Amino acid sequence: MSFGFSGNGSQPPSLLDTLIDSLKCLPGVGPKSAQRMAFHLLQRNRDGAKNLADNLNKAVKEIGHCANCRTFTEHDMCVICNDKSRLSNQICIVESPADVFTIEKSTDYKGMYFVLMGRLSPLDGIGPKELGLEILEKRLTEQKIEEMILATNSTVEGEVTAHVLSEMARKQGIKTTRLAQGVPVGGELEFVDQNTIAQAFNGRKHY
Amino acid sequence: MSFGFSGNGSQPPSLLDTLIDSLKCLPGVGPKSAQRMAFHLLQRNRDGAKNLADNLNKAVKEIGHCANCRTFTEHDMCVICNDKSRLSNQICIVESPADVFTIEKSTDYKGMYFVLMGRLSPLDGIGPKELGLEILEKRLTEQKIEEMILATNSTVEGEVTAHVLSEMARKQGIKTTRLAQGVPVGGELEFVDQNTIAQAFNGRKHY
Repeated sequence: MSFGFSGNGSQPPSLLDTLIDSLKCLPGVGPKSAQRMAFHLLQRNRDGAKNLADNLNKAVKEIGHCANCRTFTEHDMCVICNDKSRLSNQICIVESPADVFTIEKSTDYKGMYFVLMGRLSPLDGIGPKELGLEILEKRLTEQKIEEMILATNSTVEGEVTAHVLSEMARKQGIKTTRLAQGVPVGGELEFVDQNTIAQAFNGRKHY
Repeated sequence: MSFGFSGNGSQPPSLLDTLIDSLKCLPGVGPKSAQRMAFHLLQRNRDGAKNLADNLNKAVKEIGHCANCRTFTEHDMCVICNDKSRLSNQICIVESPADVFTIEKSTDYKGMYFVLMGRLSPLDGIGPKELGLEILEKRLTEQKIEEMILATNSTVEGEVTAHVLSEMARKQGIKTTRLAQGVPVGGELEFVDQNTIAQAFNGRKHY
């Protein structure tokens, strides 16, 4: 979208147009929000904008992946992998760094993580190598891991990935577990999808 | 919000925490969206992030106000003020540069603009000086303006501002008009607020 102030098209886009356009790289931000953001920053928060620009630059330059678990960090190893108080005999496998955050916030899990940074998807060219499964296999061999918790998403690709990982663990005699599937807490049955109901029904427990 | 990976609080926040925090300067972006944006940029669009940082820096540094109408521009005068084909005998007064955009997009108005960059609000220390009314008065005296279109917002402050501006124009014998108030196009009466209904009723026209 052009802000429309660049005249008849023979001129280069204005700085404002360029800014609005580049704000659209943010997820969930369309032309309308991008415009609102640009005006807000220019009119009311130029310091915030400068600060954001600095931190974007710094983050893009310095944030890489943890050598041990592959999550985002600006150091060699992330805070969790460096934390000696955590249990090294449990490893939880997730698809993305955001999942690590979600689990840390919601549970009292004190073990280690491994972040795949994706899921198996051969059609998109994402195979075992892209997910760093070699690094994971090495960890499984070298570290005394007793339980592998499969916390990949509950999608088709996530399930396939979990299956492949469980095979890998089984070869080394490591116990694998998978997050329970069922009705969400606080959810009304009426609004839960059929697949979930079916899973919850089959997986019913003593009460 | 801390991303929670900065350990026990004795360490400085991680770069990721800092990035998430600074994304919250964007309007409508809370902790959750900021986190999603940071992960998205780092995981999938580092070029976009770098580009955004560059454009933010450039915009903050170079975008100022048009000497004639006070809208945003990186030049001395904005594209509209520089456009010789526009009618110089009409001037439309708006509160913010976004309003200029809205009017340009929705109407075929071909006159000039003046952007107040705010509205009269003495309690917040916003008086005639902050709104550049001197510049506007000078334009009214020097340029042959025949009609002043008051397009300030339909809020209490916007109405007060419009009133003050109309007084200013009247002194110089300039005709003032105000955007019509009434039922929004496509709106159902049932869902229109009482004040608007009252205005629309009083302002009813021959049909």
